[in-house]
Amino acid sequence: MSTKIKISEQFKEVQDHICQSLEALDKKSTFQEDLWQREGGGGGRTRIITDGNIFEKGGVNFSEVYGPVTEMMKSQLKLDGNEFYATGVSIVLHPKNPFHPIMHMNVRYFEMDNGVYWFGGGIDMTPHYVNKSAAAKFHKGLKDLCDTYHSDFYPEFKTWADNYFFIPHRDETRGVGGIFYDHLKSKDHLEKDDLLRFAIELGHLFPVLYTQQVELCATSEWTDEHETWRNVRRGRYVEFNLVYDRGTQFGLKTAGRIESILMSLPQHASWVYNFQPEKNSPEEETLSLLKKDVDWMAHL
Amino acid sequence: MSTKIKISEQFKEVQDHICQSLEALDKKSTFQEDLWQREGGGGGRTRIITDGNIFEKGGVNFSEVYGPVTEMMKSQLKLDGNEFYATGVSIVLHPKNPFHPIMHMNVRYFEMDNGVYWFGGGIDMTPHYVNKSAAAKFHKGLKDLCDTYHSDFYPEFKTWADNYFFIPHRDETRGVGGIFYDHLKSKDHLEKDDLLRFAIELGHLFPVLYTQQVELCATSEWTDEHETWRNVRRGRYVEFNLVYDRGTQFGLKTAGRIESILMSLPQHASWVYNFQPEKNSPEEETLSLLKKDVDWMAHL
Repeated sequence: MSTKIKISEQFKEVQDHICQSLEALDKKSTFQEDLWQREGGGGGRTRIITDGNIFEKGGVNFSEVYGPVTEMMKSQLKLDGNEFYATGVSIVLHPKNPFHPIMHMNVRYFEMDNGVYWFGGGIDMTPHYVNKSAAAKFHKGLKDLCDTYHSDFYPEFKTWADNYFFIPHRDETRGVGGIFYDHLKSKDHLEKDDLLRFAIELGHLFPVLYTQQVELCATSEWTDEHETWRNVRRGRYVEFNLVYDRGTQFGLKTAGRIESILMSLPQHASWVYNFQPEKNSPEEETLSLLKKDVDWMAHL
Repeated sequence: MSTKIKISEQFKEVQDHICQSLEALDKKSTFQEDLWQREGGGGGRTRIITDGNIFEKGGVNFSEVYGPVTEMMKSQLKLDGNEFYATGVSIVLHPKNPFHPIMHMNVRYFEMDNGVYWFGGGIDMTPHYVNKSAAAKFHKGLKDLCDTYHSDFYPEFKTWADNYFFIPHRDETRGVGGIFYDHLKSKDHLEKDDLLRFAIELGHLFPVLYTQQVELCATSEWTDEHETWRNVRRGRYVEFNLVYDRGTQFGLKTAGRIESILMSLPQHASWVYNFQPEKNSPEEETLSLLKKDVDWMAHL
């Protein structure tokens, strides 16, 4: 079995494992699967959960696409080579409870016919209401895994996430960040197999982190005002994904499967003109924490 | 009084007239005004109406901005000159009733210190449910005004709107189109004053067209399913504005007043995974009509 097929098989297992874990957490809804094929080569398994106990809408997508490098890819991705291969798992979860966070994960592998390859990925969290201690535990989980691979990983990938998941026109981060990496190749003691193992371990960590956030959340009741704020924060999520997210932009411009790409958008979002939280409210505190370079370990 | 000041004064009157007309139509809510100033020079009057009888959320913005041409403007707008001046009125209305349409208008004037000037603008309509006869009457109103200026205007500007208000990744138009024009200078028998008069007349036509659509709508009751469809269509509107609209993109990237730029986004929008209308439903008929090059005059 070639390396790339081995990787995509492991990514499929990651998708299976995550869907099972999230269904066990939700206890009501299950994932519905759509299989799709890409005209130029490859396809994917889109899995969507809706109207659950925990999840209002969530997607866990696997894809494996390949074929000739198009002109669009050359200009957008600056690729050197004729044929590409890409496989990955992408997740976005939008919970019902305003005190549960939106969480996103992506792990991906890219290979060119000239032998060049790299890994990319990350996990980041967007609480509607930031709970400092819960955010710190989320970061601790990521740091612990990163540290078993390379001492550079957490500090580098945490900063990368701060800079990537940022909404310049709002001057705020999308959430409390997490880790983000791209173009990762063998480095120091880490071989290709180690980087694959890192991606797979990240995949397995994802449902653990989400379950932890749900367990840390003591609030099972909320008001219309909390829902309004949740929907406004989701609006910001839409702004980031449609205006800045490179994966979304690339998908829209290269005619990927639109419904799979835009599964990241919430069931309900809201734009309230010039919404200003009250002084000293939890909403205001959340805004004050949507900044780069927060040292979350200090909040443990 | 210099020409540009005369134009901005007339645009302010257009804003006043439109707000008064829409308040008279709504009969419940009134516009709230925010005055803002631009750091580099100029400012605006943002007026927002919310929670009305007719309007769930609507904005009627006037702005007049000027100053040195920045590097960003040079690269984005390909401007030749050192100082620019721009003034305009922008409107987006999101009604409550799913059978009332979203309607947008913009009229704008641009001038460089080297004497180059142009007008731009347009009106387009995005019904949640397309009513062919009502859409035809909307186009007829635009055509009648265009025809009093130049026989090229309606056919050229109608095609321009079809191409501009288009969502490539959905392969659908934003709505039933209307007219769109840019870089309009004196042409044939039309002098600068005529083009200004055309912009002002478009501004006065806007509330007439909106009122006509409300009057043509016989349906004052609707179901949750109609609201779901309305919110899904609003989601498409968000996609167009955040991904493709040049004015929005430019505003976000040049740090304009974000709340004024994004007043175009609806109070509530929805993304339902892979939403497919039922066969032979009004929703399916609407989708079938979101195409370029529909000859609306044939539906009168």
